[in-house]
Amino acid sequence: MTSPSSILVVGAGYVGLATAIFLADHGYPVTVLEKNPYTIETLRHGRLHFREPLLQKKLKQVLKKKKLQLCVPSKDQYRDLRFIFIAIDSADPATSKMRLTSFEKMAQWISETETNNPLTVVLKCTNVIGFADRFWQMLTENKSAKHIRLVVNPEFLREGYAYQDTAHPWRIIIGVNKKGDATPLLKLYRSVYAHSIPIITTDWKSAELVKLASNVYLSHRLAFIHEVADFARIEGLDLNSVKQGIGLDPRIGRDYFQTGLGFGGSCLPKDCHLINSHEIETGFKFKTASTALEINERILDMLIERLRRKLGLLKGKKIAILGAAFKPEVDDTRGSQAVKLALKLKRRGAKVAIFEPYLTKAEKLVEGNFLLEHSLDAALQSASAVIIGTAHRQFRSIKPNHAAKLVKKRFISDYFGVLNKEKWTKQGFEFI
Amino acid sequence: MTSPSSILVVGAGYVGLATAIFLADHGYPVTVLEKNPYTIETLRHGRLHFREPLLQKKLKQVLKKKKLQLCVPSKDQYRDLRFIFIAIDSADPATSKMRLTSFEKMAQWISETETNNPLTVVLKCTNVIGFADRFWQMLTENKSAKHIRLVVNPEFLREGYAYQDTAHPWRIIIGVNKKGDATPLLKLYRSVYAHSIPIITTDWKSAELVKLASNVYLSHRLAFIHEVADFARIEGLDLNSVKQGIGLDPRIGRDYFQTGLGFGGSCLPKDCHLINSHEIETGFKFKTASTALEINERILDMLIERLRRKLGLLKGKKIAILGAAFKPEVDDTRGSQAVKLALKLKRRGAKVAIFEPYLTKAEKLVEGNFLLEHSLDAALQSASAVIIGTAHRQFRSIKPNHAAKLVKKRFISDYFGVLNKEKWTKQGFEFI
Repeated sequence: MTSPSSILVVGAGYVGLATAIFLADHGYPVTVLEKNPYTIETLRHGRLHFREPLLQKKLKQVLKKKKLQLCVPSKDQYRDLRFIFIAIDSADPATSKMRLTSFEKMAQWISETETNNPLTVVLKCTNVIGFADRFWQMLTENKSAKHIRLVVNPEFLREGYAYQDTAHPWRIIIGVNKKGDATPLLKLYRSVYAHSIPIITTDWKSAELVKLASNVYLSHRLAFIHEVADFARIEGLDLNSVKQGIGLDPRIGRDYFQTGLGFGGSCLPKDCHLINSHEIETGFKFKTASTALEINERILDMLIERLRRKLGLLKGKKIAILGAAFKPEVDDTRGSQAVKLALKLKRRGAKVAIFEPYLTKAEKLVEGNFLLEHSLDAALQSASAVIIGTAHRQFRSIKPNHAAKLVKKRFISDYFGVLNKEKWTKQGFEFI
Repeated sequence: MTSPSSILVVGAGYVGLATAIFLADHGYPVTVLEKNPYTIETLRHGRLHFREPLLQKKLKQVLKKKKLQLCVPSKDQYRDLRFIFIAIDSADPATSKMRLTSFEKMAQWISETETNNPLTVVLKCTNVIGFADRFWQMLTENKSAKHIRLVVNPEFLREGYAYQDTAHPWRIIIGVNKKGDATPLLKLYRSVYAHSIPIITTDWKSAELVKLASNVYLSHRLAFIHEVADFARIEGLDLNSVKQGIGLDPRIGRDYFQTGLGFGGSCLPKDCHLINSHEIETGFKFKTASTALEINERILDMLIERLRRKLGLLKGKKIAILGAAFKPEVDDTRGSQAVKLALKLKRRGAKVAIFEPYLTKAEKLVEGNFLLEHSLDAALQSASAVIIGTAHRQFRSIKPNHAAKLVKKRFISDYFGVLNKEKWTKQGFEFI
């Protein structure tokens, strides 16, 4: 039996597990609450339910050291509790609204929980601006909340680097409504983080804004370079030189400038919506956010227009999409532009065949209910066009002469530049 | 008498003079053509007609060495000519169109010029995309242009650093329509530039795009942080923490993130217009550019709305604007947001009093025909509100108790954060 946990983490997604495993690895006994019992079973066996290599390794270690417990939510009492980290999937991407029912339940449970010590509730999940105020009202509705402190402490982890970014963040943002409320969390963090990591203590809303605006900035940067790429494609320009020429200005830089089908994932597009979905009443709109989303949409619409010009009506035509993950070498398809493209093509009557090499065991994609192809060849067979959906490394080694034999028509789209254009062109493929 | 020039520079603005003086400083005899005889007289006396300290010093040196000649355009023959750098004010900011008549005249003159050697014509000025094609048509309209090479070689200098950025650019972009056409300019540049400076050789349109898109990116970045600041002001958030929190992500960074009245100058807003004013016919619109301009406009409109809430109707009320230059420590008011604000206020009937410490000798501002105040006190006297228009260092030392005696009402706006808020508040000033 492990010692009683002083730390509870709600939610066993990327953020919750990275936080829990990181703190457990530093010797704190941590309990993770997760409502999906299947996920808990998988985790107890030392297996992550998503692809995150270093976190996977660390999970096994902390389980072995008995520092991590995994449970479904229950009426258990946690007398020794000092911290509750909330890391649930906080907003519904379809509506850009917070999942209020989940938060109400949690607030009730927290306010009823009796602990020997004051309790710090940490919002790790992404909030719309003004949500901490609202959650505070929920927490204090029924009784005085003298024993509770609420901290907005947004996560900034990149998928594929969940553990690394949790262990070595670029900055730590602590939002509180009373200065002293930050003290316990600061003490905990000082015990696990290097002193060189900047910590910014501010108010709730400012902390909420930092999180959303950072992701809006990144979306905005990607939208910019995608817009440039769209124009370069129309005009047949030298995109590599253009990207290099722009990025050599050190105020602009060359990192985080990869072009493809647009920006995706469970954070960037969602946060562009959330920043304009705030709880406050001024009606202020972040135009940078809505423009980034518009550009992201246009990329797909322009690609479909190109397809239509080559293939005529799309109805009944098979289109192969290679890669459905939102970025290379992950298996996460949430907010993926490749899936959005598939949906748009389906709506136009095309038969979409998706092959995602990191999801060969899954039958279906949750998003859009697409059946997944189980091999590259099955996807390519009789396709009227092939579209690179994700820049997975392994697509570089697809043999164009092999593909040429399988497809019906030799149209290919590779906005990511993973294929050797010359070789594919030699095999009769036309890049669209 | 200096030796005959092999280099001609057309236009004696920031770009033309920086190019000419830099090349002259490296020993090349350079002739600058400028149509304003008053400007030529000033320059011949070793005085720049704008504030650019290092360039000023270098001007005197090259005049002393007799490497620089300054003339009005004439029918002179330039048999030894090898390079013509075109650095005229290429586009009309009011219409976002290229000044075609000037270019047509130049094209005719160039195509009629007989030289002993092939001639490289270098477009240093900013072009709409596709303009080099058009200029090439002008150059070759009447006769074969075998002796002419046209190069798009955009400048990227920052005002205040015109010489430094010309001498140590972050990158050199060379756009040509035939690869060999770049050779003479590359040879010239290799003789004056360090080998470590990256040179990108590409096509005309790609080079034109690099220039405009780089400035659109910077505008876009500034628009983003200004948008965040506008929101932070509405909500009373902790803007410094927010900016720091966002900028600590190294993919975002903290440089070039100053907030104020928006982005201005003779380049950024203009290039946001020019990128959507291209010579090509696809109708593609850069949404990042138009959004940046919209945000820039909203900042001013929101400030005026704040003023109206405090002062009621603005008609007849005196508003003091301190600083009219588009950025600190320069005297250039082209594209300045402070001037745009002044125009908007004037349109609402306010009496605008502008004090620009770097233009105390001028009577009037070219833009908007505003009379300039000749002292800070004259601007402050009886003002119903004071607005910091530019973050000039010297405004930091304005004494709030002195200002309090002069003004009619103690409303002040300082979006740049140059004033010590606490001290001014103590003197009864309300920040709006």
